[in-house]
Amino acid sequence: MTGPRFTKLAQTLPATVPFVGPEAQERARGEPFSARLGANENVFGPSPKAIAAMRDASSDIWMYGDPESHDLRYALAAFHNVGPQNIVVGEGIDGLLGYLARLLIEPGDAVVTSNGAYPTFNYHVAGYGGILHKVPYFNDAEDLPALLKKAGEVGAKLVYFANPDNPMGSWHTGGDIAAELDALPNGCVLLLDEAYVELAPPGTAVPIDINDARVIRMRTFSKGYGMAGARVGYALGQADFIRAFEKIRNHFGLNRAAQAGALTALQDQAWLEQTVAKVTASRDMLSEIAAKYELAALPSATNFVAIDCGRDDTYAKLILEGLVKRGIFVRMPFVAPQNRCIRVSCGPARHMALFDAALEEVLAEIG
Amino acid sequence: MTGPRFTKLAQTLPATVPFVGPEAQERARGEPFSARLGANENVFGPSPKAIAAMRDASSDIWMYGDPESHDLRYALAAFHNVGPQNIVVGEGIDGLLGYLARLLIEPGDAVVTSNGAYPTFNYHVAGYGGILHKVPYFNDAEDLPALLKKAGEVGAKLVYFANPDNPMGSWHTGGDIAAELDALPNGCVLLLDEAYVELAPPGTAVPIDINDARVIRMRTFSKGYGMAGARVGYALGQADFIRAFEKIRNHFGLNRAAQAGALTALQDQAWLEQTVAKVTASRDMLSEIAAKYELAALPSATNFVAIDCGRDDTYAKLILEGLVKRGIFVRMPFVAPQNRCIRVSCGPARHMALFDAALEEVLAEIG
Repeated sequence: MTGPRFTKLAQTLPATVPFVGPEAQERARGEPFSARLGANENVFGPSPKAIAAMRDASSDIWMYGDPESHDLRYALAAFHNVGPQNIVVGEGIDGLLGYLARLLIEPGDAVVTSNGAYPTFNYHVAGYGGILHKVPYFNDAEDLPALLKKAGEVGAKLVYFANPDNPMGSWHTGGDIAAELDALPNGCVLLLDEAYVELAPPGTAVPIDINDARVIRMRTFSKGYGMAGARVGYALGQADFIRAFEKIRNHFGLNRAAQAGALTALQDQAWLEQTVAKVTASRDMLSEIAAKYELAALPSATNFVAIDCGRDDTYAKLILEGLVKRGIFVRMPFVAPQNRCIRVSCGPARHMALFDAALEEVLAEIG
Repeated sequence: MTGPRFTKLAQTLPATVPFVGPEAQERARGEPFSARLGANENVFGPSPKAIAAMRDASSDIWMYGDPESHDLRYALAAFHNVGPQNIVVGEGIDGLLGYLARLLIEPGDAVVTSNGAYPTFNYHVAGYGGILHKVPYFNDAEDLPALLKKAGEVGAKLVYFANPDNPMGSWHTGGDIAAELDALPNGCVLLLDEAYVELAPPGTAVPIDINDARVIRMRTFSKGYGMAGARVGYALGQADFIRAFEKIRNHFGLNRAAQAGALTALQDQAWLEQTVAKVTASRDMLSEIAAKYELAALPSATNFVAIDCGRDDTYAKLILEGLVKRGIFVRMPFVAPQNRCIRVSCGPARHMALFDAALEEVLAEIG
């Protein structure tokens, strides 16, 4: 009795989990968190109209979703002033990152990212046998010139660049990024992860010719639109590039209610504006709380704030563990020097107050 | 300005779509179907309790789903009397088929299936560069002895076998299948697609030692449980085999409301029993309708019936097109000799009546 013959690549891969979910931590703790501020979820939630659309669609869940996500894709095309052939909708940016890695990466291919940027991107690249080359952050921000230089040196097929960045919340202007594009090596694709861009100052989104096949942009309904649990993201790019996803994607992978919810959320831009205002207020609260304890909140263009705890990762981890023990779910960057920080999602005032009180206790405890 | 450097494999793949969705057909028609009987969806719908769970969870959609699908996985483990380590939950069987192909198939690897069986399986195998070897149906059923013989001849890593079968609705007893397992070649995995098994006669599910790493079973909430649009499926297998999925799957790919709905649907077995009764009655209605027009409904252990139109594929296609023109969405097998049939999903009496009336018109028209 023998078992499966896994591919050479599958045999070498670890059974990695990019992130442990808060539910697993709650099960280990034996009680739920009182504030869920660790996964950059949008605690303010989606448009009530989007919730209503998902509730209504629950009754129709016996039907598969439209494999073309036609209505959502056309609405997104109109919204971005591009063609529907420039958009592919997928199971969150995570799902689309997997598809993109699959389209481009063969074992041994070079890929460039920042040291400490999105782990799920790294997971997918490693999962297709890509070799990751990592460039340090510069001033707590992803360093596009250094990334592109490295891409040239290693002959990278793909460069990952998040704007705004996770986990630091830093950002560049879209104009500055566009001006760097001339330095993109031939045959290298720039992946612009714009998951948080709806929450960033105007001008952060990169103005790129949709027919430029050197760049692919990813957006999501998980952050600004508050629908992380729905799993809807999309990629924007040149038509032939986008069409390649049709070769490999799970055509029936989208949840039908999620498609309806995303369409309605997109149509409720007034709610998004309210969300941006709430997030901005919460960022200010997080800065004030940090300052109260002589910690430094970093500027953020996202729905979270990296708080510099002022010492090393051991100290930041102590604070994080103290917060978690007190029922406040937060996370921290994985890599030095960013891991001198903890990362706290925005949320309503009562969650900010819970965080404040817990932080005060933790700091008093560890001295 | 150059574009992306796709992998050698991606360059050779066509931009295939395994199925065109009914929504695309409706857009082309300019009006909706009056009966949606083509995708083997469960028109009777899921448990009202499951719908309520999904509606309730819509308000919590700002949270990611639990990446471990802990509660659902533990409930499934108890239900199947196996351990949680024997189950992986994924984005429908379609998603899990993709993961399985990725774990096992390198370009050039041999895979065996039946000629005319599930196209999405073939899509995923081709998508990882596998070479498909196809075995004819025997008496309108998948032919396990012939599949295993072929697997031995070509050194297959994977054999696909659906029980009950789609698109013909035929089935074997679980005992008969288990008795064939000795003929499974060394190093070959038998993939048992049991998508429709909840709707089949008792004894159709295969009694397999969960620690037998030669076999992996796939189940879904799309058919018997009526939640196709939710995208929840699961694989049952030996613990190490199941753990391999952790290396590559989209850990946050499940919709949070869908997880809640699936858990509730599983707990409402009384509703499933009612569904089985409704499906059985509908199969009988489809048989009667077919007989009325001197067509032959094939025996079915699923929520659809293949109706033998008695001539060749051209004739069956004429009937199918006539039905579609009249607002009845049905499909037909892709491959001879099965494509002498049309395939009609079960549904409530009013949909059966619509099908009946449309079929009468079509047959009168084509003579």
